[in-house]
Amino acid sequence: MPASSSSAVPALVFLVQSADQPGLVARISSFFHERGFNIVHLEQHADPVSSRLFLRIALDQRGLRSSRAELTEAFGALADALDLTWSAHFADHTQRVALLVTKASHCLYDLLVRWKEGELPCDIPLIIGNHPDLEPVANAFRVPFHCLPVTKATKPQQEAEIDALLRKNHIDLVVLARYMQILTADFTDRWTGRIINIHHAFLPAFQGARPYHRAYERGVKLIGATAHYVIAALDEGPIIEQDVVRVTHEDAPQSLIRIGRDVERVVLARAVQAHLEHRIVVDGHRTVVFGRGS
Amino acid sequence: MPASSSSAVPALVFLVQSADQPGLVARISSFFHERGFNIVHLEQHADPVSSRLFLRIALDQRGLRSSRAELTEAFGALADALDLTWSAHFADHTQRVALLVTKASHCLYDLLVRWKEGELPCDIPLIIGNHPDLEPVANAFRVPFHCLPVTKATKPQQEAEIDALLRKNHIDLVVLARYMQILTADFTDRWTGRIINIHHAFLPAFQGARPYHRAYERGVKLIGATAHYVIAALDEGPIIEQDVVRVTHEDAPQSLIRIGRDVERVVLARAVQAHLEHRIVVDGHRTVVFGRGS
Amino acid sequence: MPASSSSAVPALVFLVQSADQPGLVARISSFFHERGFNIVHLEQHADPVSSRLFLRIALDQRGLRSSRAELTEAFGALADALDLTWSAHFADHTQRVALLVTKASHCLYDLLVRWKEGELPCDIPLIIGNHPDLEPVANAFRVPFHCLPVTKATKPQQEAEIDALLRKNHIDLVVLARYMQILTADFTDRWTGRIINIHHAFLPAFQGARPYHRAYERGVKLIGATAHYVIAALDEGPIIEQDVVRVTHEDAPQSLIRIGRDVERVVLARAVQAHLEHRIVVDGHRTVVFGRGS
Amino acid sequence: MPASSSSAVPALVFLVQSADQPGLVARISSFFHERGFNIVHLEQHADPVSSRLFLRIALDQRGLRSSRAELTEAFGALADALDLTWSAHFADHTQRVALLVTKASHCLYDLLVRWKEGELPCDIPLIIGNHPDLEPVANAFRVPFHCLPVTKATKPQQEAEIDALLRKNHIDLVVLARYMQILTADFTDRWTGRIINIHHAFLPAFQGARPYHRAYERGVKLIGATAHYVIAALDEGPIIEQDVVRVTHEDAPQSLIRIGRDVERVVLARAVQAHLEHRIVVDGHRTVVFGRGS
Repeated sequence: MPASSSSAVPALVFLVQSADQPGLVARISSFFHERGFNIVHLEQHADPVSSRLFLRIALDQRGLRSSRAELTEAFGALADALDLTWSAHFADHTQRVALLVTKASHCLYDLLVRWKEGELPCDIPLIIGNHPDLEPVANAFRVPFHCLPVTKATKPQQEAEIDALLRKNHIDLVVLARYMQILTADFTDRWTGRIINIHHAFLPAFQGARPYHRAYERGVKLIGATAHYVIAALDEGPIIEQDVVRVTHEDAPQSLIRIGRDVERVVLARAVQAHLEHRIVVDGHRTVVFGRGS
Repeated sequence: MPASSSSAVPALVFLVQSADQPGLVARISSFFHERGFNIVHLEQHADPVSSRLFLRIALDQRGLRSSRAELTEAFGALADALDLTWSAHFADHTQRVALLVTKASHCLYDLLVRWKEGELPCDIPLIIGNHPDLEPVANAFRVPFHCLPVTKATKPQQEAEIDALLRKNHIDLVVLARYMQILTADFTDRWTGRIINIHHAFLPAFQGARPYHRAYERGVKLIGATAHYVIAALDEGPIIEQDVVRVTHEDAPQSLIRIGRDVERVVLARAVQAHLEHRIVVDGHRTVVFGRGS
Repeated sequence: MPASSSSAVPALVFLVQSADQPGLVARISSFFHERGFNIVHLEQHADPVSSRLFLRIALDQRGLRSSRAELTEAFGALADALDLTWSAHFADHTQRVALLVTKASHCLYDLLVRWKEGELPCDIPLIIGNHPDLEPVANAFRVPFHCLPVTKATKPQQEAEIDALLRKNHIDLVVLARYMQILTADFTDRWTGRIINIHHAFLPAFQGARPYHRAYERGVKLIGATAHYVIAALDEGPIIEQDVVRVTHEDAPQSLIRIGRDVERVVLARAVQAHLEHRIVVDGHRTVVFGRGS
Repeated sequence: MPASSSSAVPALVFLVQSADQPGLVARISSFFHERGFNIVHLEQHADPVSSRLFLRIALDQRGLRSSRAELTEAFGALADALDLTWSAHFADHTQRVALLVTKASHCLYDLLVRWKEGELPCDIPLIIGNHPDLEPVANAFRVPFHCLPVTKATKPQQEAEIDALLRKNHIDLVVLARYMQILTADFTDRWTGRIINIHHAFLPAFQGARPYHRAYERGVKLIGATAHYVIAALDEGPIIEQDVVRVTHEDAPQSLIRIGRDVERVVLARAVQAHLEHRIVVDGHRTVVFGRGS
């Protein structure tokens, strides 16, 4: 990862999906070629089961001769004609990420260090905790920390406060960095496709609480972690990234918890990075995660 | 793996378990030392959750000055005094393995090739299929093949025939090499700890049928395989070995099936090898799998 | 992998490379669109270091309305205009693969089993050994076996015989499945890009002879295997695929050799599969290995 | 990992090595049993190539009825009689670790976060940098930072200052957390077995400078990292831990550097943890790394 994030995220990325149709790649690539853009990276995926087509096109910014409004309007017209679902992402809009935490610090530290080191192309303007424990970590990285405690009774109220803070801070992405609360459908519906959670198990194994203890009892030989977009159904959102690590009979639950942290960290970081680089398209319960490009 | 299997399996292996108690390792190692045995490999595991102790002791055969009967009788007396559960395994007894198959050939081929190449320290005197499809493979390796078709109605009868064949052939271990039938509790109880199955998923995810199709639908980013001892409850026996391989959105179910074969093969082979080398102790729903030793 | 290889290999694949130039994807995809082809898979790679562009385009065969000669002639004209290096691959030409072996059987068995099971989209019309040891394996799979012993003095002569056999059998790809002879530059130059070797180490570590023994002496904690195209310089050809497996201090050289076999097998098979699916482009000392597509 | 580090490191660990000899395990385990110790973990490794035997014995502290001096004196007498090389490690001595750094921060952050979180059973009383860049990181974790710049001419002088600081701070272990200076034989000889370095490549591949650039040029498909004890010969010390991560043709050198950081971090942390838990014995150019125990 370069020292400056600008070289990691292409100047302009279009994410497109539609029903599969002949000539789509040709028509879209011609659209950009005619307007003087150079295609830096193009990756296409035609899903044979759903018969849908997914495209990621990264463009060189030198090609942008017209205004953004003109470009997106023109592409919108093409998209209407071809019945495409699409989004355009300009690299000079630095995405704003909020971190939600509880007491476990390892994912919080990991994301803050990566951000501090220029690995994550984003701003992190706020951290929200339902406990005060991690405020010192936020302070060490000079990120404002908001403590919003929650009980079953106060959850709607607390989520409204979170929602207000997110909106006030123009947040693009919410990362649940071991936030140990179940969000209501009301909240997750409002932030669909913009909340990433890390679950400390290889989903769909060990959904729900205390996965490492259950992994110990089941005697599995690998433990894992799963980063996914959050939907109303617990631990059932579209999976972005997973990984595992080998364990043995020698690893009691406390050992699994410790070993698992390293997987949680890296899986969450990879998922957040892919999202920030506009490499993910959600396809129902599945995700298309395009390559890093060159 | 040495060219001859004799050097892979130590001459004499004791597997021991008991409630944890002080001085156990000292007393057991002294027992063998006093009788002139050299300990080639000793591995001990004290489970902090169950408070049980597990030991694998591999001995040099040059030490065997008394008869086997005397040795096992003497150890039995010690074991009674210390309330140990134990078994002794002499390398010059070549274990006899039966393979049960249906139509998929990859695990069958894999085990036969390893056996042919001297990697698996065992004999394979028979293959049983509930379909005739794999008889040519058995023939190519000159292993007798028995076709025992089965329907829901004839299952008790067919399992009785299998059981008879296994007993007649003095089988020590039954390997379900993608045998696509659920065995009855009656059968599995009779062969407890002596049936190894390969499940084509990372258990406990995707228990039951069509795991690759369900993995596709869930959109997982890794697929796996699990080798386990078979108990009456489907896919819930003690896990011996697991592994995974990375897949992407590009992999439709047929691709997952193909990629998964390589994991199934190697996971099953590792489990069978560990069993044949007397490296596994079952501890309730879990297994202790000792190291390969030197 | 589907039962029939036809669904694994797209009907028509173009592999293209050139200096990076604006509009290339648009022009090429338009070329096919205008001729009524549907692009099943398109992947593009722009190398930022070499400033070269690489493309793989897989086409639906239903689009082929003109003759092959017309299509390739028309594309050739475009390619000349754009200064492209390219090749076209029609799936109904079943590629013909020759296996070269010495005494180790595991890679030979592995490829033959995959081929027998319909995983590898190719014919295997001949196996050549410089020792007679593996003739029985060839016989079991009913593939003609040619024993061509070699000494330092007879190498030019023996290679001429190999070359003659390959040509007579219209071989497209030569796979060195643990063939323990160094081929002369004369031979490798004639078959550039059409010989795949498996080296039993993670190159560039442990080039040359006895890599497992040297891995033991160096005390590495992982051992690996490398599949690469063969060039005149030993073990220095472009790498296609690599993988590793964890080992410990308990693994003496013989154990490393045994464990390593599983990595060698799967790494070689993946490389051969990628080649047969026309997913590889050589870029100097490096390879671009495109995705499996959907 | 337990909340308190004390439970991770057994109360008392003996590391023993000797020429292989009959009855060693029995005599040593009897020694402890007779003195009322309970053996919490015992692992033995008999190297068939060097014919040496290695033992790690972890003891319950409740057994310590005599003084440490008496215990170690008594064991010393046994060790002399059996010609053992050995060391004893008491958990209530908290080991003291110094970190040496240059400009790259990822390994420094990683170790500090783990230490802060109670994962690493040690104190970190000082950080030494040959550049001032990482002083703010040290400050954030309230660890004294010493900047000791170095040139070729001043190296002996600077190393003398480092040595003095290490001794003054009673340092047990020196960790080179991406310290980009080659230490002199004079220095490494004085700290043999007490300096751990992280090399950003899978040794023995890419020894020396700029390994990621050379990995790119060679076109490898995996990149790795290696933690090893430092000896006078550059990058040739005994390897403690290695790991790799998959990369593709899409990853230019900058991308390899970024991806590699995650492997470097975790490989170095695992090596430091194993050292602090007294799980490593050096055997010439190799290491025996015992299991985590239960």
